[in-house]
Amino acid sequence: MSHWHHALNPIGYIDGCFPKKYATPRQPGLAPHAEGRIVLEGAWFQAACRGLEEFSHIIVIFGFQIESISTHATIRPPRFAGKKRIGIFASRSPHRPNPIGLSIVRLNKIESIKNITYLSISGIDMINGTPVLDIKPYVPYADCIPSATASWAQEPARFDVQMSSEAEATLLTLPENVRHLITEIISLDPRDGAQKKNDRTSVFTLLHYDITWTLQGTTAYVESIHLLKDVDSGPRSL
Amino acid sequence: MSHWHHALNPIGYIDGCFPKKYATPRQPGLAPHAEGRIVLEGAWFQAACRGLEEFSHIIVIFGFQIESISTHATIRPPRFAGKKRIGIFASRSPHRPNPIGLSIVRLNKIESIKNITYLSISGIDMINGTPVLDIKPYVPYADCIPSATASWAQEPARFDVQMSSEAEATLLTLPENVRHLITEIISLDPRDGAQKKNDRTSVFTLLHYDITWTLQGTTAYVESIHLLKDVDSGPRSL
Repeated sequence: MSHWHHALNPIGYIDGCFPKKYATPRQPGLAPHAEGRIVLEGAWFQAACRGLEEFSHIIVIFGFQIESISTHATIRPPRFAGKKRIGIFASRSPHRPNPIGLSIVRLNKIESIKNITYLSISGIDMINGTPVLDIKPYVPYADCIPSATASWAQEPARFDVQMSSEAEATLLTLPENVRHLITEIISLDPRDGAQKKNDRTSVFTLLHYDITWTLQGTTAYVESIHLLKDVDSGPRSL
Repeated sequence: MSHWHHALNPIGYIDGCFPKKYATPRQPGLAPHAEGRIVLEGAWFQAACRGLEEFSHIIVIFGFQIESISTHATIRPPRFAGKKRIGIFASRSPHRPNPIGLSIVRLNKIESIKNITYLSISGIDMINGTPVLDIKPYVPYADCIPSATASWAQEPARFDVQMSSEAEATLLTLPENVRHLITEIISLDPRDGAQKKNDRTSVFTLLHYDITWTLQGTTAYVESIHLLKDVDSGPRSL
Protein backbone atom coordinates (compact mmCIF):
# COMPACT_ATOMS: atom_id res chain seq x y z
CA MET A 1 0.00 0.00 0.00
CA SER A 2 1.25 3.46 -0.89
CA HIS A 3 1.94 6.05 1.72
CA TRP A 4 0.81 9.55 0.93
CA HIS A 5 0.27 12.24 3.48
CA HIS A 6 -0.28 15.83 2.58
CA ALA A 7 -2.30 18.25 4.67
CA LEU A 8 -4.90 19.66 2.33
CA ASN A 9 -6.04 23.18 2.94
CA PRO A 10 -8.96 24.84 1.17
CA ILE A 11 -7.83 27.45 -1.36
CA GLY A 12 -11.21 29.20 -1.27
CA TYR A 13 -14.93 28.60 -1.01
CA ILE A 14 -18.18 28.58 -2.96
CA ASP A 15 -20.59 31.49 -2.70
CA GLY A 16 -23.69 30.68 -4.72
CA CYS A 17 -27.41 30.13 -4.90
CA PHE A 18 -27.79 27.08 -2.67
CA PRO A 19 -27.94 27.90 1.06
CA LYS A 20 -29.23 24.42 1.94
CA LYS A 21 -28.54 20.89 0.93
CA TYR A 22 -31.73 19.42 -0.39
CA ALA A 23 -32.56 21.91 -3.15
CA THR A 24 -29.01 21.51 -4.51
CA PRO A 25 -28.87 19.47 -7.73
CA ARG A 26 -27.23 16.06 -7.51
CA GLN A 27 -24.93 16.71 -10.46
CA PRO A 28 -23.42 19.80 -12.07
CA GLY A 29 -25.01 21.18 -15.24
CA LEU A 30 -28.56 20.05 -14.38
CA ALA A 31 -29.51 23.63 -13.51
CA PRO A 32 -27.62 25.80 -16.03
CA HIS A 33 -28.84 28.98 -14.29
CA ALA A 34 -27.41 27.90 -10.93
CA GLU A 35 -24.77 30.59 -10.56
CA GLY A 36 -22.12 31.19 -8.00
CA ARG A 37 -18.53 32.13 -7.64
CA ILE A 38 -15.34 30.70 -6.26
CA VAL A 39 -13.81 33.20 -3.86
CA LEU A 40 -10.00 33.12 -3.60
CA GLU A 41 -8.45 35.49 -1.09
CA GLY A 42 -4.90 36.76 -1.63
CA ALA A 43 -2.86 38.24 -4.46
CA TRP A 44 -1.22 34.83 -5.08
CA PHE A 45 -4.46 33.52 -6.56
CA GLN A 46 -4.68 36.23 -9.18
CA ALA A 47 -1.42 34.92 -10.69
CA ALA A 48 -2.47 31.28 -10.17
CA CYS A 49 -5.55 31.87 -12.39
CA ARG A 50 -3.59 33.46 -15.25
CA GLY A 51 -4.66 31.87 -18.54
CA LEU A 52 -7.68 30.13 -17.03
CA GLU A 53 -9.96 32.57 -18.88
CA GLU A 54 -9.03 30.68 -22.08
CA PHE A 55 -11.17 27.75 -20.91
CA SER A 56 -14.98 27.61 -21.12
CA HIS A 57 -15.26 25.06 -18.33
CA ILE A 58 -13.33 24.12 -15.20
CA ILE A 59 -13.11 21.11 -12.92
CA VAL A 60 -13.68 22.14 -9.32
CA ILE A 61 -12.37 19.75 -6.69
CA PHE A 62 -13.91 20.43 -3.31
CA GLY A 63 -14.43 19.00 0.15
CA PHE A 64 -17.83 17.61 1.03
CA GLN A 65 -19.21 19.26 4.14
CA ILE A 66 -20.07 16.18 6.12
CA GLU A 67 -20.10 15.47 9.83
CA SER A 68 -18.06 12.30 9.70
CA ILE A 69 -16.52 9.88 7.25
CA SER A 70 -18.88 7.11 6.23
CA THR A 71 -17.73 3.54 6.65
CA HIS A 72 -20.55 2.08 4.56
CA ALA A 73 -19.32 0.36 1.41
CA THR A 74 -22.73 0.62 -0.27
CA ILE A 75 -25.53 3.19 -0.38
CA ARG A 76 -29.14 3.31 -1.57
CA PRO A 77 -29.22 6.02 -4.23
CA PRO A 78 -32.36 8.23 -4.41
CA ARG A 79 -32.69 7.18 -8.07
CA PHE A 80 -33.75 3.70 -7.00
CA ALA A 81 -36.09 4.97 -4.25
CA GLY A 82 -34.15 3.11 -1.58
CA LYS A 83 -34.76 -0.27 -3.21
CA LYS A 84 -31.28 -1.04 -4.50
CA ARG A 85 -27.80 -0.86 -3.01
CA ILE A 86 -24.77 0.11 -5.06
CA GLY A 87 -21.13 0.50 -4.10
CA ILE A 88 -19.97 3.93 -3.01
CA PHE A 89 -17.46 4.04 -5.91
CA ALA A 90 -20.33 3.52 -8.39
CA SER A 91 -21.96 6.61 -6.92
CA ARG A 92 -21.28 10.34 -6.66
CA SER A 93 -22.63 10.40 -3.10
CA PRO A 94 -20.83 12.70 -0.61
CA HIS A 95 -20.44 9.82 1.85
CA ARG A 96 -17.12 8.35 0.68
CA PRO A 97 -13.91 7.14 2.32
CA ASN A 98 -12.23 10.38 1.26
CA PRO A 99 -14.86 13.14 1.16
CA ILE A 100 -13.67 14.74 -2.06
CA GLY A 101 -16.19 16.10 -4.57
CA LEU A 102 -15.75 17.07 -8.19
CA SER A 103 -17.92 19.25 -10.42
CA ILE A 104 -17.44 20.39 -13.98
CA VAL A 105 -18.94 23.86 -14.32
CA ARG A 106 -19.04 26.68 -16.85
CA LEU A 107 -16.52 29.47 -16.21
CA ASN A 108 -18.12 32.80 -17.07
CA LYS A 109 -15.76 35.47 -15.76
CA ILE A 110 -12.66 36.02 -13.65
CA GLU A 111 -12.15 39.27 -11.81
CA SER A 112 -9.87 40.42 -9.03
CA ILE A 113 -10.96 43.15 -6.64
CA LYS A 114 -8.69 44.26 -3.78
CA ASN A 115 -6.63 41.03 -3.74
CA ILE A 116 -9.69 38.79 -3.90
CA THR A 117 -10.19 36.78 -7.10
CA TYR A 118 -13.72 35.78 -8.05
CA LEU A 119 -14.41 33.04 -10.59
CA SER A 120 -18.02 33.35 -11.77
CA ILE A 121 -19.34 29.89 -12.55
CA SER A 122 -22.68 28.35 -13.50
CA GLY A 123 -24.29 24.94 -13.55
CA ILE A 124 -23.12 24.49 -9.96
CA ASP A 125 -24.22 21.78 -7.54
CA MET A 126 -22.32 22.92 -4.46
CA ILE A 127 -23.77 24.34 -1.26
CA ASN A 128 -22.72 27.81 -0.09
CA GLY A 129 -19.52 27.71 1.89
CA THR A 130 -18.22 24.55 0.24
CA PRO A 131 -14.42 24.53 0.63
CA VAL A 132 -12.58 24.43 -2.71
CA LEU A 133 -9.40 22.33 -2.81
CA ASP A 134 -8.28 22.67 -6.43
CA ILE A 135 -9.27 24.12 -9.79
CA LYS A 136 -8.23 22.46 -13.06
CA PRO A 137 -8.98 23.45 -16.64
CA TYR A 138 -11.48 21.18 -18.42
CA VAL A 139 -9.50 19.81 -21.36
CA PRO A 140 -12.00 18.40 -23.90
CA TYR A 141 -9.62 16.03 -25.69
CA ALA A 142 -8.91 14.23 -22.39
CA ASP A 143 -12.06 14.88 -20.35
CA CYS A 144 -14.93 14.74 -22.85
CA ILE A 145 -15.59 11.14 -23.93
CA PRO A 146 -18.67 11.01 -26.15
CA SER A 147 -18.45 7.21 -26.45
CA ALA A 148 -18.66 6.69 -22.66
CA THR A 149 -21.62 4.69 -21.40
CA ALA A 150 -23.21 4.75 -17.96
CA SER A 151 -26.10 2.30 -17.90
CA TRP A 152 -28.71 3.61 -15.45
CA ALA A 153 -26.90 6.90 -14.72
CA GLN A 154 -28.88 8.96 -17.25
CA GLU A 155 -30.12 12.51 -16.92
CA PRO A 156 -33.11 12.46 -14.54
CA ALA A 157 -36.70 12.94 -15.71
CA ARG A 158 -38.14 16.36 -14.86
CA PHE A 159 -41.44 17.61 -13.56
CA ASP A 160 -43.46 20.11 -15.54
CA VAL A 161 -43.63 23.34 -13.53
CA GLN A 162 -46.72 25.53 -13.16
CA MET A 163 -47.13 28.73 -11.11
CA SER A 164 -50.05 30.00 -9.04
CA SER A 165 -51.09 33.56 -9.91
CA GLU A 166 -49.47 34.69 -6.63
CA ALA A 167 -46.18 32.92 -7.45
CA GLU A 168 -46.29 34.23 -11.02
CA ALA A 169 -46.70 37.82 -9.77
CA THR A 170 -43.68 37.46 -7.46
CA LEU A 171 -41.65 35.75 -10.18
CA LEU A 172 -42.14 38.73 -12.52
CA THR A 173 -40.37 40.97 -10.00
CA LEU A 174 -37.26 38.76 -9.97
CA PRO A 175 -34.22 38.87 -12.29
CA GLU A 176 -34.60 36.69 -15.37
CA ASN A 177 -31.81 34.34 -14.28
CA VAL A 178 -33.53 33.68 -10.95
CA ARG A 179 -36.85 32.95 -12.70
CA HIS A 180 -35.12 30.29 -14.80
CA LEU A 181 -33.29 28.91 -11.78
CA ILE A 182 -36.45 28.44 -9.69
CA THR A 183 -38.09 26.50 -12.52
CA GLU A 184 -34.99 24.37 -13.09
CA ILE A 185 -34.68 23.44 -9.41
CA ILE A 186 -38.35 22.56 -8.96
CA SER A 187 -38.30 20.46 -12.15
CA LEU A 188 -35.52 18.38 -10.53
CA ASP A 189 -37.64 17.50 -7.44
CA PRO A 190 -36.01 19.31 -4.50
CA ARG A 191 -37.38 17.06 -1.77
CA ASP A 192 -35.54 14.93 0.70
CA GLY A 193 -36.55 11.36 1.47
CA ALA A 194 -38.82 12.28 4.42
CA GLN A 195 -40.70 14.88 2.37
CA LYS A 196 -41.25 12.39 -0.43
CA LYS A 197 -42.86 9.99 2.02
CA ASN A 198 -44.96 12.34 4.09
CA ASP A 199 -45.74 15.66 2.54
CA ARG A 200 -47.99 16.78 -0.24
CA THR A 201 -46.67 20.32 0.09
CA SER A 202 -42.94 21.04 0.31
CA VAL A 203 -40.88 24.14 0.99
CA PHE A 204 -37.30 24.73 -0.10
CA THR A 205 -34.87 27.62 0.12
CA LEU A 206 -33.06 29.00 -2.90
CA LEU A 207 -31.02 32.20 -2.85
CA HIS A 208 -32.97 34.21 -0.27
CA TYR A 209 -36.40 32.85 -1.13
CA ASP A 210 -38.60 30.22 0.44
CA ILE A 211 -40.56 28.44 -2.26
CA THR A 212 -43.70 26.43 -1.50
CA TRP A 213 -44.95 23.88 -3.99
CA THR A 214 -47.16 20.81 -4.41
CA LEU A 215 -46.67 17.78 -6.60
CA GLN A 216 -49.74 16.94 -8.71
CA GLY A 217 -48.97 13.86 -10.79
CA THR A 218 -45.84 14.84 -12.71
CA THR A 219 -46.58 18.57 -12.47
CA ALA A 220 -44.95 20.68 -9.78
CA TYR A 221 -47.38 23.42 -8.83
CA VAL A 222 -45.68 26.44 -7.23
CA GLU A 223 -47.91 28.04 -4.60
CA SER A 224 -45.77 30.93 -3.37
CA ILE A 225 -42.33 32.53 -3.41
CA HIS A 226 -41.43 34.47 -0.28
CA LEU A 227 -38.40 36.64 0.41
CA LEU A 228 -36.60 35.43 3.53
CA LYS A 229 -36.16 38.00 6.31
CA ASP A 230 -32.65 36.79 7.06
CA VAL A 231 -31.08 37.72 3.74
CA ASP A 232 -27.64 36.80 5.08
CA SER A 233 -28.44 33.17 4.39
CA GLY A 234 -28.59 34.00 0.69
CA PRO A 235 -25.64 34.51 -1.60
CA ARG A 236 -23.77 37.65 -2.39
CA SER A 237 -23.10 36.80 -6.00
CA LEU A 238 -26.57 37.10 -7.53
CA MET B 1 -12.63 31.24 4.64
CA SER B 2 -14.04 27.78 5.10
CA HIS B 3 -12.52 25.34 7.51
CA TRP B 4 -12.25 21.80 6.32
CA HIS B 5 -9.95 19.20 7.75
CA HIS B 6 -10.17 15.56 6.90
CA ALA B 7 -7.23 13.21 6.95
CA LEU B 8 -7.13 11.63 3.52
CA ASN B 9 -5.81 8.11 3.27
CA PRO B 10 -5.11 6.30 0.02
CA ILE B 11 -7.67 3.60 -0.75
CA GLY B 12 -5.29 1.79 -3.09
CA TYR B 13 -2.58 2.32 -5.66
CA ILE B 14 -1.80 2.17 -9.38
CA ASP B 15 0.09 -0.78 -10.84
CA GLY B 16 0.68 -0.13 -14.51
CA CYS B 17 3.07 0.33 -17.40
CA PHE B 18 4.92 3.48 -16.30
CA PRO B 19 7.77 2.84 -13.85
CA LYS B 20 9.22 6.33 -14.39
CA LYS B 21 7.91 9.84 -14.73
CA TYR B 22 9.07 11.18 -18.05
CA ALA B 23 7.65 8.54 -20.40
CA THR B 24 4.25 8.94 -18.73
CA PRO B 25 1.73 10.82 -20.92
CA ARG B 26 0.71 14.28 -19.72
CA GLN B 27 -3.01 13.53 -20.00
CA PRO B 28 -5.14 10.40 -19.82
CA GLY B 29 -6.35 8.84 -23.06
CA LEU B 30 -3.34 9.91 -25.14
CA ALA B 31 -1.97 6.36 -25.09
CA PRO B 32 -5.06 4.11 -25.30
CA HIS B 33 -2.88 1.00 -24.86
CA ALA B 34 -1.40 2.27 -21.59
CA GLU B 35 -2.87 -0.33 -19.27
CA GLY B 36 -2.77 -0.77 -15.55
CA ARG B 37 -4.92 -1.61 -12.62
CA ILE B 38 -6.11 -0.03 -9.42
CA VAL B 39 -5.33 -2.38 -6.54
CA LEU B 40 -7.73 -2.21 -3.57
CA GLU B 41 -6.88 -4.43 -0.62
CA GLY B 42 -9.65 -5.64 1.67
CA ALA B 43 -13.10 -7.21 1.35
CA TRP B 44 -14.73 -3.82 1.98
CA PHE B 45 -13.65 -2.63 -1.48
CA GLN B 46 -15.37 -5.47 -3.29
CA ALA B 47 -18.72 -4.18 -1.98
CA ALA B 48 -17.69 -0.54 -2.58
CA CYS B 49 -17.23 -1.31 -6.31
CA ARG B 50 -20.62 -2.98 -6.71
CA GLY B 51 -22.34 -1.59 -9.81
CA LEU B 52 -19.23 0.16 -11.10
CA GLU B 53 -18.99 -2.42 -13.91
CA GLU B 54 -22.00 -0.66 -15.47
CA PHE B 55 -19.76 2.28 -16.41
CA SER B 56 -17.34 2.32 -19.35
CA HIS B 57 -15.14 5.01 -17.78
CA ILE B 58 -14.19 6.13 -14.30
CA ILE B 59 -12.73 9.26 -12.75
CA VAL B 60 -9.67 8.39 -10.68
CA ILE B 61 -8.67 10.93 -8.05
CA PHE B 62 -5.14 10.39 -6.87
CA GLY B 63 -2.29 11.97 -4.98
CA PHE B 64 0.65 13.33 -6.94
CA GLN B 65 3.90 11.80 -5.78
CA ILE B 66 5.88 14.96 -5.22
CA GLU B 67 8.60 15.85 -2.78
CA SER B 68 7.05 19.05 -1.51
CA ILE B 69 4.15 21.37 -2.14
CA SER B 70 4.95 24.04 -4.69
CA THR B 71 4.41 27.65 -3.75
CA HIS B 72 4.77 28.94 -7.30
CA ALA B 73 1.58 30.54 -8.61
CA THR B 74 2.67 30.13 -12.23
CA ILE B 75 4.53 27.50 -14.25
CA ARG B 76 6.11 27.23 -17.71
CA PRO B 77 4.26 24.39 -19.44
CA PRO B 78 6.30 22.12 -21.75
CA ARG B 79 3.82 22.97 -24.50
CA PHE B 80 5.26 26.49 -24.74
CA ALA B 81 8.88 25.29 -24.53
CA GLY B 82 9.48 27.36 -21.40
CA LYS B 83 8.63 30.63 -23.12
CA LYS B 84 5.30 31.40 -21.49
CA ARG B 85 4.05 31.37 -17.91
CA ILE B 86 0.51 30.37 -17.01
CA GLY B 87 -1.25 30.10 -13.67
CA ILE B 88 -1.16 26.75 -11.92
CA PHE B 89 -4.99 26.55 -12.03
CA ALA B 90 -4.88 26.89 -15.84
CA SER B 91 -2.63 23.83 -15.88
CA ARG B 92 -2.82 20.13 -15.03
CA SER B 93 0.73 20.22 -13.61
CA PRO B 94 1.38 18.08 -10.49
CA HIS B 95 2.85 21.09 -8.67
CA ARG B 96 -0.29 22.57 -7.09
CA PRO B 97 -1.28 23.94 -3.69
CA ASN B 98 -3.14 20.68 -3.02
CA PRO B 99 -1.36 17.85 -4.88
CA ILE B 100 -4.52 16.12 -6.11
CA GLY B 101 -4.62 14.61 -9.59
CA LEU B 102 -7.54 13.47 -11.69
CA SER B 103 -7.66 11.14 -14.68
CA ILE B 104 -10.58 9.84 -16.69
CA VAL B 105 -9.74 6.32 -17.85
CA ARG B 106 -11.47 3.38 -19.48
CA LEU B 107 -12.64 0.68 -17.07
CA ASN B 108 -12.11 -2.73 -18.66
CA LYS B 109 -12.70 -5.27 -15.92
CA ILE B 110 -13.25 -5.66 -12.20
CA GLU B 111 -12.17 -8.80 -10.41
CA SER B 112 -11.65 -9.77 -6.81
CA ILE B 113 -9.09 -12.40 -5.85
CA LYS B 114 -8.50 -13.31 -2.20
CA ASN B 115 -9.94 -10.06 -0.81
CA ILE B 116 -8.05 -7.89 -3.27
CA THR B 117 -10.09 -6.06 -5.89
CA TYR B 118 -8.42 -5.17 -9.19
CA LEU B 119 -9.87 -2.58 -11.55
CA SER B 120 -8.27 -3.02 -14.99
CA ILE B 121 -8.02 0.38 -16.65
CA SER B 122 -6.51 1.81 -19.82
CA GLY B 123 -5.51 5.18 -21.21
CA ILE B 124 -3.68 5.80 -17.94
CA ASP B 125 -1.22 8.62 -17.25
CA MET B 126 -0.21 7.68 -13.70
CA ILE B 127 3.15 6.38 -12.54
CA ASN B 128 3.37 2.99 -10.81
CA GLY B 129 2.64 3.25 -7.11
CA THR B 130 0.48 6.37 -7.43
CA PRO B 131 -1.81 6.47 -4.38
CA VAL B 132 -5.51 6.46 -5.28
CA LEU B 133 -7.80 8.61 -3.12
CA ASP B 134 -11.19 8.12 -4.74
CA ILE B 135 -12.97 6.48 -7.67
CA LYS B 136 -16.10 8.00 -9.19
CA PRO B 137 -18.21 6.83 -12.12
CA TYR B 138 -17.87 8.95 -15.27
CA VAL B 139 -21.40 10.22 -15.88
CA PRO B 140 -21.61 11.46 -19.49
CA TYR B 141 -24.58 13.79 -19.07
CA ALA B 142 -22.67 15.75 -16.40
CA ASP B 143 -19.02 15.14 -17.30
CA CYS B 144 -18.92 15.11 -21.12
CA ILE B 145 -19.34 18.63 -22.48
CA PRO B 146 -18.88 18.59 -26.28
CA SER B 147 -19.34 22.37 -26.49
CA ALA B 148 -16.43 23.07 -24.11
CA THR B 149 -13.52 25.08 -25.54
CA ALA B 150 -9.92 25.12 -24.37
CA SER B 151 -7.97 27.54 -26.58
CA TRP B 152 -4.37 26.29 -26.77
CA ALA B 153 -4.99 23.06 -24.78
CA GLN B 154 -5.46 20.85 -27.85
CA GLU B 155 -4.28 17.29 -28.37
CA PRO B 156 -0.52 17.38 -28.94
CA ALA B 157 1.07 16.77 -32.34
CA ARG B 158 2.74 13.37 -32.69
CA PHE B 159 5.96 12.12 -34.18
CA ASP B 160 5.96 9.48 -36.87
CA VAL B 161 7.62 6.36 -35.47
CA GLN B 162 10.05 4.13 -37.39
CA MET B 163 11.88 1.04 -36.16
CA SER B 164 15.41 -0.19 -36.84
CA SER B 165 15.56 -3.80 -38.01
CA GLU B 166 16.91 -4.74 -34.56
CA ALA B 167 14.02 -2.96 -32.77
CA GLU B 168 11.51 -4.44 -35.23
CA ALA B 169 12.78 -7.94 -34.49
CA THR B 170 12.40 -7.42 -30.73
CA LEU B 171 8.99 -5.82 -31.17
CA LEU B 172 7.68 -8.91 -32.96
CA THR B 173 8.38 -10.99 -29.86
CA LEU B 174 6.24 -8.72 -27.65
CA PRO B 175 2.49 -8.90 -26.97
CA GLU B 176 0.41 -6.86 -29.44
CA ASN B 177 -0.72 -4.42 -26.76
CA VAL B 178 2.86 -3.63 -25.81
CA ARG B 179 3.80 -3.05 -29.46
CA HIS B 180 1.04 -0.46 -29.75
CA LEU B 181 1.99 1.10 -26.43
CA ILE B 182 5.65 1.58 -27.36
CA THR B 183 4.65 3.37 -30.57
CA GLU B 184 2.08 5.54 -28.78
CA ILE B 185 4.54 6.65 -26.10
CA ILE B 186 7.34 7.47 -28.53
CA SER B 187 4.94 9.41 -30.76
CA LEU B 188 4.18 11.64 -27.73
CA ASP B 189 7.87 12.61 -27.24
CA PRO B 190 8.99 10.97 -23.96
CA ARG B 191 11.86 13.33 -23.25
CA ASP B 192 12.37 15.62 -20.30
CA GLY B 193 13.54 19.21 -20.71
CA ALA B 194 17.26 18.37 -20.32
CA GLN B 195 17.08 15.62 -22.95
CA LYS B 196 15.36 17.98 -25.38
CA LYS B 197 18.21 20.45 -25.02
CA ASN B 198 21.22 18.17 -25.03
CA ASP B 199 20.66 14.77 -26.52
CA ARG B 200 20.20 13.48 -30.00
CA THR B 201 19.60 9.98 -28.66
CA SER B 202 17.23 9.35 -25.72
CA VAL B 203 16.41 6.33 -23.59
CA PHE B 204 13.22 5.76 -21.67
CA THR B 205 11.78 2.94 -19.59
CA LEU B 206 8.38 1.45 -20.25
CA LEU B 207 7.10 -1.70 -18.56
CA HIS B 208 10.37 -3.63 -18.15
CA TYR B 209 12.02 -2.39 -21.33
CA ASP B 210 14.60 0.29 -22.01
CA ILE B 211 13.91 1.88 -25.35
CA THR B 212 16.57 3.87 -27.23
CA TRP B 213 15.51 6.27 -29.98
CA THR B 214 16.66 9.26 -32.01
CA LEU B 215 14.64 12.17 -33.29
CA GLN B 216 15.17 12.85 -36.99
CA GLY B 217 13.03 15.83 -38.01
CA THR B 218 9.51 14.83 -36.96
CA THR B 219 10.29 11.12 -37.17
CA ALA B 220 11.20 9.16 -34.04
CA TYR B 221 13.62 6.42 -35.04
CA VAL B 222 13.69 3.54 -32.56
CA GLU B 223 17.16 2.02 -32.36
CA SER B 224 16.69 -0.74 -29.81
CA ILE B 225 14.35 -2.28 -27.25
CA HIS B 226 16.09 -4.05 -24.36
CA LEU B 227 14.60 -6.11 -21.57
CA LEU B 228 15.65 -4.72 -18.19
CA LYS B 229 17.49 -7.12 -15.90
CA ASP B 230 15.63 -5.81 -12.86
CA VAL B 231 12.15 -6.87 -13.94
CA ASP B 232 10.77 -5.82 -10.55
CA SER B 233 10.75 -2.24 -11.75
CA GLY B 234 8.13 -3.24 -14.30
CA PRO B 235 4.45 -3.78 -13.63
CA ARG B 236 2.70 -6.92 -12.64
CA SER B 237 -0.44 -6.22 -14.61
CA LEU B 238 0.77 -6.67 -18.18
